[in-house]
Amino acid sequence: MTIQQKLHSVTSGPITGSRKIYSAPRERSDILVPFREIALHPTAKEPPLRVYDTSGPYTEENARIDLAVGLPERRAAWIAARGFANAAGRAVRPEDNGFAPADRLVPLCPAAHEINVGRDGQMITQYEFARAGIITEEMIYVAHRENLGRGAAHAQAAALRADGENFGAAMPEFVTPEFVRSEIAAGRAIIPANINHPELEPVIIGRNFLVKINANIGNSAVTSSAAEEVEKLVWAIRWGADTVMDLSTGRNIHNIRSWILRNSPVPIGTVPIYQALEKVGGDAAKLDWEVFKDTLIEQAEQGVDYFTIHAGVRLSYIPLTARRVTGIVSRGGSIMAHWCLSHHRESFIYEHFDDICDIMRKYDVSFSLGDGLRPGSNADANDAAQFAELETLGALTKTAWAKGCQVMIEGPGHVPMHKIKANMDKQLAACGEAPFYTLGPLTTDIAPGYDHITSAIGAAMIGWFGTAMLCYVTPKEHLGLPNRDDVKNGVITYKLAAHAADLAKGHPLARLRDDAISRARFEFRWEDQFNLSLDPDTARDFHDETLPKEAHKTAHFCSMCGPKFCSMKISHDIREEADRLAGLEAQKALFQESGNQLYMPVGADAPEGRDGA
Amino acid sequence: MTIQQKLHSVTSGPITGSRKIYSAPRERSDILVPFREIALHPTAKEPPLRVYDTSGPYTEENARIDLAVGLPERRAAWIAARGFANAAGRAVRPEDNGFAPADRLVPLCPAAHEINVGRDGQMITQYEFARAGIITEEMIYVAHRENLGRGAAHAQAAALRADGENFGAAMPEFVTPEFVRSEIAAGRAIIPANINHPELEPVIIGRNFLVKINANIGNSAVTSSAAEEVEKLVWAIRWGADTVMDLSTGRNIHNIRSWILRNSPVPIGTVPIYQALEKVGGDAAKLDWEVFKDTLIEQAEQGVDYFTIHAGVRLSYIPLTARRVTGIVSRGGSIMAHWCLSHHRESFIYEHFDDICDIMRKYDVSFSLGDGLRPGSNADANDAAQFAELETLGALTKTAWAKGCQVMIEGPGHVPMHKIKANMDKQLAACGEAPFYTLGPLTTDIAPGYDHITSAIGAAMIGWFGTAMLCYVTPKEHLGLPNRDDVKNGVITYKLAAHAADLAKGHPLARLRDDAISRARFEFRWEDQFNLSLDPDTARDFHDETLPKEAHKTAHFCSMCGPKFCSMKISHDIREEADRLAGLEAQKALFQESGNQLYMPVGADAPEGRDGA
Repeated sequence: MTIQQKLHSVTSGPITGSRKIYSAPRERSDILVPFREIALHPTAKEPPLRVYDTSGPYTEENARIDLAVGLPERRAAWIAARGFANAAGRAVRPEDNGFAPADRLVPLCPAAHEINVGRDGQMITQYEFARAGIITEEMIYVAHRENLGRGAAHAQAAALRADGENFGAAMPEFVTPEFVRSEIAAGRAIIPANINHPELEPVIIGRNFLVKINANIGNSAVTSSAAEEVEKLVWAIRWGADTVMDLSTGRNIHNIRSWILRNSPVPIGTVPIYQALEKVGGDAAKLDWEVFKDTLIEQAEQGVDYFTIHAGVRLSYIPLTARRVTGIVSRGGSIMAHWCLSHHRESFIYEHFDDICDIMRKYDVSFSLGDGLRPGSNADANDAAQFAELETLGALTKTAWAKGCQVMIEGPGHVPMHKIKANMDKQLAACGEAPFYTLGPLTTDIAPGYDHITSAIGAAMIGWFGTAMLCYVTPKEHLGLPNRDDVKNGVITYKLAAHAADLAKGHPLARLRDDAISRARFEFRWEDQFNLSLDPDTARDFHDETLPKEAHKTAHFCSMCGPKFCSMKISHDIREEADRLAGLEAQKALFQESGNQLYMPVGADAPEGRDGA
Repeated sequence: MTIQQKLHSVTSGPITGSRKIYSAPRERSDILVPFREIALHPTAKEPPLRVYDTSGPYTEENARIDLAVGLPERRAAWIAARGFANAAGRAVRPEDNGFAPADRLVPLCPAAHEINVGRDGQMITQYEFARAGIITEEMIYVAHRENLGRGAAHAQAAALRADGENFGAAMPEFVTPEFVRSEIAAGRAIIPANINHPELEPVIIGRNFLVKINANIGNSAVTSSAAEEVEKLVWAIRWGADTVMDLSTGRNIHNIRSWILRNSPVPIGTVPIYQALEKVGGDAAKLDWEVFKDTLIEQAEQGVDYFTIHAGVRLSYIPLTARRVTGIVSRGGSIMAHWCLSHHRESFIYEHFDDICDIMRKYDVSFSLGDGLRPGSNADANDAAQFAELETLGALTKTAWAKGCQVMIEGPGHVPMHKIKANMDKQLAACGEAPFYTLGPLTTDIAPGYDHITSAIGAAMIGWFGTAMLCYVTPKEHLGLPNRDDVKNGVITYKLAAHAADLAKGHPLARLRDDAISRARFEFRWEDQFNLSLDPDTARDFHDETLPKEAHKTAHFCSMCGPKFCSMKISHDIREEADRLAGLEAQKALFQESGNQLYMPVGADAPEGRDGA
């Protein structure tokens, strides 16, 4: 297959049972926000359920996707109106693509556009606009998105039914653009949105919003083409990834990244030190500020929305890791630690942090301050190295804010359950409530092959406690490179963890989907149950393994118990009977104030049991 | 295949990388307790890691398994010494096997033995012995088992390294038989151990011990043979199920159960109301005390170790479920609710609870008081119906104790994270600290196909809070019958959840395995990492998908980052460098009291960050 042929192979078309729609907020009919609508069976007598949608134009009914053209530039007009300078841009150099020989060079995506760069003195970043009291189109967009397109009245009605424990988060019943602005201005939320990524569908990351998830992709050394990498992106966002990090190394990374960005509706994050290391032939000791700076500008011009910057790996902290069970497990962290030790000098990233802020601000690239010293085992959790770095990240956050940049903070890692909350509490205190973005954490080390699960436990908990975005872990963690099934498994697992967190926080709209699927379950609307689930195809396949016939999808029982034993069916009978009896009891009560009570009065306080009866 | 041929098809042989061993406590060399030993690579310079083992004789090196003969009766002498009566036993009746016709009748397991039955006035149950201050062989057995066969000195040394938050649990550093006795006497733990189950390897369930898990098996209406059902049991315990519930319905359940019990080293639980319902043709309204009582005796004589008894589904609570989103989802609960409403009478199980205690005591069948009104959706969690039943279960617990019986309490279900702890707290308060045994709970309703994960989140948390046993959920929950892969997936998922709970509680021995696997990971001992994991086969397969060559299993890198980027490798370099520098620093310090400090002093308190430096 040629590259050209492969370009047409990305997955497209609606998610089973869903229809892509676009909805605009009342005040700005030109701002079209994507959602999915899941139609329900007529017997449900319910309108379609609207859900948050990250999948981009790929899931439109008649999606016309041409990777060489790229996605529609829906932000282009907003950005243009801000009057940025256009730059010629940095010329692509052989080392940007790992010195790939001509016959192996993936071409640049033809869908290039002019490069925007902020001018000195002008407002560039969402943070700067927010601080100045200006509401951007991106802020209006995410407000409507977080409300699931509902108007204020609707959202408030739904909110009455929610409860939760939010640990100091303050989610409003209805998200206004002004609330978004104020959260960004406070540093509590970010909209990663490079001014060179006009294809972006903006997303907000902060603890007073829906919990987000990130999926990682990346080329493997030998086999990847541009279309394969775009397909990984498309596949991850189809199942719900809110952002995607491109962790590619080796050859062709510049050119493949151009295809990813021009075809990505979600924010793209990278770890620039990986590419910088490639440029110096893989020898960490040869890294320096110039090559790192060059890489930042290269990637910022391409439109990368956030950079992981391991600025907290300071020379003085490295000895703190020496007696750990698993040392340093972050790639970026170990590269910088190696550099520091080789030169016996303070990290050049730390020393040039002001310069890095100046570069990132010019394109509104958000910081994701990397936790290069995160624990790689339960034994190392919450140790001196980890928390020393976190304190430094907190100080750097304030520097970045002062420079006008958006910031989030990366977190662990491997942490047993009883040590998770301390991570959140310390992060909030040290980093001025900047959004936390954690990898899991994994709550035990002993289940390789199942680390999407060991980590989903920790992810759901830390999401509940206040983490704004959860970086997924796949079943291949610690073992190998995830394949297509692993990526889907990881994304769905993290979607359910993030949703469990939203529910527990009492997010005003979170329970709508749970209640809808539970009603479908109780009413034996099998197709609705499948379609309302996070993964309709798997739910249907699992059901059909035991009861494949179409007729069984309308049956009022399932394979677990069969028709005779069905508890749901009996419950329906009970409901009818109870309705009848409740009528009788109500009548009786009119005539009889005391005496033998058939039904004990049960209210908020549970009644006494047998011995008390 | 004939039934006879199928009898030889159960899975046997050691778990990959492990060796089955038996170890006796110092005081009783005749009490042989099983463990698994995982040998490590010589470069580890570590002794084999000993782990808890539920898999029975099936994983012995040269296991000679004959299902018609049954397992060795290791408890027989202990039981015989207690002087129980021998009973002729109840004759098998056609309805016991669902009126299976002769040509479809599975034969009884030939490995029958005489039926023990306790005499009036004598001590029968572990609870009665414990209350009388008597330490049984079963208590000695589980003490040694909980200590992983370590002596007191060893266990205490390891415990120094553990930390945790145990929410009022009180796990000793070393479990003595006397501690086991006192926990059972207090009602805080049970050893489900029918005096007609001599093949049992005793296990203790209580919050001051390792968290246990249960797996469910059960025949499907058409296809099951005895050997297939035994294979399901063997498969579930191979991966770590501590107890197994046989939820069979339909034909042949009596005879198949005889094969299961004679070949089960783990406690077997059942829900007798299921079989009782079969006996009355599936019409719940036709149930009565006589058929239920007959079923209890039938199953108790066979050796079932615990019964789920839905005695808390009282007539007066049923209307509380009528307005629920998902009504009653427990099968047993809905059967009893149906009965109560049909007759408009209080539950016969509730009314005959004293009689039930008398029967169960005579065989030491433990109570698992069923939560027939557990919530089937997040919307219904912690509602009046659920907690009304829980209060009643608490009262019944005290009745059962007064009658001399062992008791545990079943719990939900579907519960969002912020409502989980209340379940544990209320259960402890209402049920006098009797062990809690929960199904999950599922923390969101929207992920059918992934409910082993939605529920593992809740299971790990409630296990941490104090739940003694977690009933597994498979990926097929809500959708269909689990196959072999689903059962394994469910068991491993629950093993990791239970282990995460042990770690968080600060169980003194829990972290040994995490630390061993983390050291193996850090030192690139790939084979050790596989073998130390909960599922060595899957870990190895996943690794080999990307790096299949044998040589790669000794490589000092993996497929995720490749040799250039390996953070573990860099960490090793750092450790060496740090050692060297630490030496230099130490020298310097001798000559230089103050001045420029290259390494900032970092202790328990994190240092100031950049701005402060």
